[in-house]
Amino acid sequence: MAHIDLGVDEKEFPGVRGPMQYRPETAGPLNALAEALLRSEPHPLSRGERELLAAYVSGLNECQFCSTSHSAFAAAQLEAGWDLVDQVHADLDSAPVSAKMKALLRIAGAVQAGGRTVTTALITAAREEGATDLELHDTVLIAAAFCMFNRYVDGLGTFAPEGRALYDEHAKVIIAQGYVRPDARRPGPAAAAEG
Amino acid sequence: MAHIDLGVDEKEFPGVRGPMQYRPETAGPLNALAEALLRSEPHPLSRGERELLAAYVSGLNECQFCSTSHSAFAAAQLEAGWDLVDQVHADLDSAPVSAKMKALLRIAGAVQAGGRTVTTALITAAREEGATDLELHDTVLIAAAFCMFNRYVDGLGTFAPEGRALYDEHAKVIIAQGYVRPDARRPGPAAAAEG
Repeated sequence: MAHIDLGVDEKEFPGVRGPMQYRPETAGPLNALAEALLRSEPHPLSRGERELLAAYVSGLNECQFCSTSHSAFAAAQLEAGWDLVDQVHADLDSAPVSAKMKALLRIAGAVQAGGRTVTTALITAAREEGATDLELHDTVLIAAAFCMFNRYVDGLGTFAPEGRALYDEHAKVIIAQGYVRPDARRPGPAAAAEG
Repeated sequence: MAHIDLGVDEKEFPGVRGPMQYRPETAGPLNALAEALLRSEPHPLSRGERELLAAYVSGLNECQFCSTSHSAFAAAQLEAGWDLVDQVHADLDSAPVSAKMKALLRIAGAVQAGGRTVTTALITAAREEGATDLELHDTVLIAAAFCMFNRYVDGLGTFAPEGRALYDEHAKVIIAQGYVRPDARRPGPAAAAEG
C-alpha cells in the first residue's frame, strides 16, 4: 500500500498512475514532459530507442514499475523486442545495439550515477558515433527525468504488478494514445489545500 | 563550457536557463512543474518552505547552480533568510526549522538517496508532526524533481556563476514573475530534427 491515500484502487492505477490521479496539477507537466521526450516527432531517435534509455535508467534505479513499463514500451516499438531489452539490462557492453545507442546508454548510466559523472570523454565517444547535440541533450534529460519518475514512484511506495503481461497491455495504450490522456484530469487536493 | 552548443551566451543564461533556451519543447513542462510544486497557491507549505526542500536536495546532489539558486529563492521568502538556509545545509538536525519541516526535509533526503529508502518510519514521523498527504506527496515529488533538475544542469556541464549576488538578483525575478515566463519560448532544434 502506498505511503499516502491516493484516492484510487492501486491495482487499477499502479505505479506512477496512482499519484498522477491524486495530483493532476503535477501530472499535467509530468505527462507533457514524457510525451515531448519519448514520443515527439520528428526526432533523430526512434520512440523505441528513447524508451530504451528510460528503461535502462529505471533498471539501474531498480524501480520495478518504471523499469518493466518502459522496457515493455521499448520492446513493443523495437524490432528485436524483449530479447534486445533484456540484453541491454543484463550487459550493455555485449548488447546488440548500434554503437551510437551504446554510447548514449553509457551517458544515461552516468547521469543516473550523478550529473557530474558525465565526462567530456563520454560525450566525445557519442559524437564519434554520430550523436548530435539534440540527441545528447535529450539523452541527458531522459535519464535525469527517470531519476525523478523512479523516485516519485518508489518514494511514495506505490504498487507494482508482477510479471510482464499487464505492462505489455499498457504498452498498447501508450502507443495508441501517448502519455497525455484525459484520464489524468480531475480536480486534485491542492484545490482544497489546508493552508 | 557546456557539453553541447546551447545557442546562447552561457553567462547570460547560466545553469538550467541555457538548456531551457536550447529546448523550449521540454522547458515548457519543466517550468510548469516547478511552478506547480514551488509556487502554486493555495498550498499548506509556504513558497519559502518548498524552495528550502529544493535547495536541500540540490545541496545533497552537490549541484552548485541549483543549490545556490533555490537557496537564494528560499532565503528571499523565509523570514530568517540565508542564515536559516545555511544552517539547514550545514546540519539539519540542529537547524531551527519546525519539527514538521525537519521531518519533511528528512524524507526529501531519503528520496535523494533513492526512492526505496523512504521508510514507513520516516512517513509516520512526519505525520506525527502534522504533515498531510498533500505535503508528503509534494515533498517526495519536489525532492524527486530536483534529482532531475540537478542531473540535467550538471549532466550537460552548464555554467554556474560563483558567489551569491547573481542568484539573489534572480530570486527577485522568480518572486515577481514565477517560473513560467515568455523568455523560455522560441522554436527549438526538434522543429528541424535530423531524423
